Amino acid sequence: MSRISILGLGAMGAALAMTLIRKGHSVTVWNRTASRSEPLASAGATVAASPAEAIANSDLTILCVVDYPAARAILAEAEPVLANRDLVNLTNGTPGEAKDLAAFLQARGAAYLDGGIMAIPPMIGDDGALILYSGSAALFEGHKAALDALAASHYLGDDPGLAPLYDLALLSGMYGLFSGFMHASALVTSGGGKAVDFLPLLLPWLQAMSGTLPDLADKVDSGRHDQNVVSNLAMQKIALDNIVRASREEGVAPDFMEPMLRLAARRVADGHGSDDISGVIETIRRQK
Amino acid sequence: MSRISILGLGAMGAALAMTLIRKGHSVTVWNRTASRSEPLASAGATVAASPAEAIANSDLTILCVVDYPAARAILAEAEPVLANRDLVNLTNGTPGEAKDLAAFLQARGAAYLDGGIMAIPPMIGDDGALILYSGSAALFEGHKAALDALAASHYLGDDPGLAPLYDLALLSGMYGLFSGFMHASALVTSGGGKAVDFLPLLLPWLQAMSGTLPDLADKVDSGRHDQNVVSNLAMQKIALDNIVRASREEGVAPDFMEPMLRLAARRVADGHGSDDISGVIETIRRQK
Repeated sequence: MSRISILGLGAMGAALAMTLIRKGHSVTVWNRTASRSEPLASAGATVAASPAEAIANSDLTILCVVDYPAARAILAEAEPVLANRDLVNLTNGTPGEAKDLAAFLQARGAAYLDGGIMAIPPMIGDDGALILYSGSAALFEGHKAALDALAASHYLGDDPGLAPLYDLALLSGMYGLFSGFMHASALVTSGGGKAVDFLPLLLPWLQAMSGTLPDLADKVDSGRHDQNVVSNLAMQKIALDNIVRASREEGVAPDFMEPMLRLAARRVADGHGSDDISGVIETIRRQK
Repeated sequence: MSRISILGLGAMGAALAMTLIRKGHSVTVWNRTASRSEPLASAGATVAASPAEAIANSDLTILCVVDYPAARAILAEAEPVLANRDLVNLTNGTPGEAKDLAAFLQARGAAYLDGGIMAIPPMIGDDGALILYSGSAALFEGHKAALDALAASHYLGDDPGLAPLYDLALLSGMYGLFSGFMHASALVTSGGGKAVDFLPLLLPWLQAMSGTLPDLADKVDSGRHDQNVVSNLAMQKIALDNIVRASREEGVAPDFMEPMLRLAARRVADGHGSDDISGVIETIRRQK
């Protein structure tokens, strides 16, 4: 069992610490507001007086705070003890922030692994929780048993920016799903229906439409959006127009549907009306 | 077996006609551009010289054209024969357009059923195709065997606007899913990854997140967004900020994510930061 320090005891940090204690690890905790340490201390954690003390007394330190500026401030306080330490940062941020923090730590002799938690705090330690990692492969392999106690672990590569990139990509998928659900529910409830009664239609439909994503992903990767098209953009633009017109009739604000209509219309105007819907990605992706 | 006329032989109308022929019905077809009737005639359909002739020689007429103005123009040509006829309109449009067309036909003594096809043409007649219906219950019950030959039939109620409303709601769910998929894929491919390689992470994640929709639907129906909140809007706004900042870092246009960020930020600013994400629907739904 490892000696592990957790810096940051918000809902997620506390869930990480409690899970490691429950699974038999020797856990040290630190939080800027000390009172949040008390439930962990009662459960058997050692409470450190400073980030440096926590880092110095463990084989692995896990940071989980509100944002990267907060993470950077905590590590700056611990600068004298960073050399030869293993640090995992599970704070949410951008790929650029992860790369900057990795460079800061590597310059001080520490190994850095970035992680993106694809779970809410009650899921930590249970089946179904996933953490994406990227950065030091040696750190990941050396502490895999402890990391696997938190969630299923998925290592993406050396670039520390990959974990936040894939984390934010998965969240983007979720927010797209939620956008569609909310617009659909706003339409149905405007007509007097209930969102719960609509779900037996919506959920199998979304399941069926998810079945088209592998084909769309092939088109995204190849950039060939004109192959095996069964419902072309010109047709889909008519459906999108109908959605926005019907929303206005029903008093539903079309905010969630307007980007797809606008970008599909731009593709059609640019001569790609016979392409598949996948071609809309060319209006948002980085130009090569 | 019924005598059925199909008006409009685009890809979808032709698929409807061919399926009914294949399943043993007596089919008459009409299309403004007559050459599109030829493959159906070869398969055994009778070709009518006008919409009125088609309607007069059948027990049931199904319209499937590009939009409601086109449907209205065709029916206006057939006005003398409309009395006591059964008409099903599978043209895409809005609830308001469906209600207007139903009123036009009812005033001329015809029964009207509106339908929304949740399938692409190759799926017609196979498992997995669904058609939503609303309007005349007597027409729906009287022709259910013929309608069931096309797809699974789901009757929503007397209001002819319900089928297009639910059709567009399901499409909204799909376009939300596609929005999220495209933004996620744009992020992953900007980092050098492939969209197809990302799917084994994305698909189970979306499946898991779909599992939260019943709880969100309850909150949408009750308007109580402050119950059993595990990840509140204030926290989710930070994640949405990170998505938009990371997108800009990666050169990905944030069009698909900006509405959720903007509307979530508005809810937080209005004092609902401790609510669930479901509360965002209050910014788009019709005010009661």
